[in-house]
Amino acid sequence: MCISSITLKMTFTEVSSNRCFGGYQKVFSHESKELKCKMNFAVYLPPQAENDGEKLPVVYWLSGLTCTEQNFIQKAGAQRYASELGIIIVCPDTSPRGCNIPGEDDSWDFGTGAGFYVDATADPWKKNYRMFSYVTEELPNLIEDSFPVDPNRKSIMGHSMGGHGALICALKTKGKYCSVSAFSPICHPTACPWGKKAFSGYLGGGDGDKSWEEWDATCLVAKYNGPPLEILIHQFLKENQLLPEKLVAACTQGKVPVVLHMSEGYDHSYYFIASFIGQHLEHHAKYLKA
Amino acid sequence: MCISSITLKMTFTEVSSNRCFGGYQKVFSHESKELKCKMNFAVYLPPQAENDGEKLPVVYWLSGLTCTEQNFIQKAGAQRYASELGIIIVCPDTSPRGCNIPGEDDSWDFGTGAGFYVDATADPWKKNYRMFSYVTEELPNLIEDSFPVDPNRKSIMGHSMGGHGALICALKTKGKYCSVSAFSPICHPTACPWGKKAFSGYLGGGDGDKSWEEWDATCLVAKYNGPPLEILIHQFLKENQLLPEKLVAACTQGKVPVVLHMSEGYDHSYYFIASFIGQHLEHHAKYLKA
Repeated sequence: MCISSITLKMTFTEVSSNRCFGGYQKVFSHESKELKCKMNFAVYLPPQAENDGEKLPVVYWLSGLTCTEQNFIQKAGAQRYASELGIIIVCPDTSPRGCNIPGEDDSWDFGTGAGFYVDATADPWKKNYRMFSYVTEELPNLIEDSFPVDPNRKSIMGHSMGGHGALICALKTKGKYCSVSAFSPICHPTACPWGKKAFSGYLGGGDGDKSWEEWDATCLVAKYNGPPLEILIHQFLKENQLLPEKLVAACTQGKVPVVLHMSEGYDHSYYFIASFIGQHLEHHAKYLKA
Repeated sequence: MCISSITLKMTFTEVSSNRCFGGYQKVFSHESKELKCKMNFAVYLPPQAENDGEKLPVVYWLSGLTCTEQNFIQKAGAQRYASELGIIIVCPDTSPRGCNIPGEDDSWDFGTGAGFYVDATADPWKKNYRMFSYVTEELPNLIEDSFPVDPNRKSIMGHSMGGHGALICALKTKGKYCSVSAFSPICHPTACPWGKKAFSGYLGGGDGDKSWEEWDATCLVAKYNGPPLEILIHQFLKENQLLPEKLVAACTQGKVPVVLHMSEGYDHSYYFIASFIGQHLEHHAKYLKA
């Protein structure tokens, strides 16, 4: 398939296209039915995407608080590895935008840029803030309709809020993703201030609400009973809201293998992500190419 | 040398420090004597910088129009290669800042962010806009005083305006740099609108002024008589101000070997730089480690 012909089949608008490591880093916009607003997403197409008839594996990347689809594609340096491995990388935005919901732009850690990858159930968020369904259903369906991807070979990874998003996407959909990984994920949102703020807003109820557990990776992994799933995490030290030790304990309980690298001296920035994104893509390639 | 002790010897202020690929990406600020203003510069210290007594080679990166010291360190992905090769990378800012010169912030391609790496001779720029002396003298002297670098093993590279800057630094100082490379450099500023605007402002005179030739890479390389110097250039197509064909013709005249890669489909962005920065660092390593 010739990459330049892809646009003919799409319901997307191409926002940008840059040749990169022999492939193309592209950004598209579309009207999301799930989120009822215009959304951007990024797609890296490695050189192998031009091979006639070849269907490639795809890895989804979910970004953290305040990010858009741009941060990862500009700063992580993932294209080099994706080009070598023949993997497509898809990066959605982190929330609906411009929905005119009162208060949507008041906080950096709630509303715009902070969708937490849940399907909101509380007013006024429940109409638009359906990032879980967007990321696990609408976006993959659009990607599979429009790009040379194998629908049976997808994996997911993310950073911080998006690391938690990747974990719940893999844990809740049981078998939809071949593998999952995260950089310094929020591990146990029902037990940290960022998570409590987000869940009380999007899901309603208060601290201790049982419905929250269906959106908490630590709660979900403790009772996981889906196909085998190995979790890879890179974590740095010194951030007391992330709670990786709670996740690891719950993984043991749920019999889900987890490899946790504590990377001393690193921080929450993309310098950390760039340093280890190659290892994460190798982790996914192991399952996607098995 | 322990990297954490470096700060004790310096006249710099550490602005940021991020662990990256086993080393550190740092940004410092200092009061420049040459430019008479506060300047930021970035330094990537690979893991080898911690080896007791070892002096590492250093490559200077000069950015293009509108950039600061941040663009390259966030977007080029060079730290991975520098970590593997044991090379320190230093990135200065692109111009003096905040000098309160009338008009300094009026254009994106002249004044702030657009110093063109020349020593200005015309009022009101000549007091501060001395980027050539800053980049080739003041900054290397400070770096050599404060970091574990070998003063006899330095090379230089850059992008666009900074690609031209790298070429004139290597050609004018004859032997100071072991090697030079450039991404889509402005090759012949006396013959293109960006260059004519900059040179008439910083150097005075008008189109055809003989003094301009001392700051034009194509003019300089045609009469180069210094130590052997091989130029590596990656260029994309379709930009008619860059004039690589003029430089290559002049290299033949000056008997300076040049390797020009025309990278079809790429553009002026950091996606282009990221795709080939590994090749550029390998080029420099060949000479720095000879």
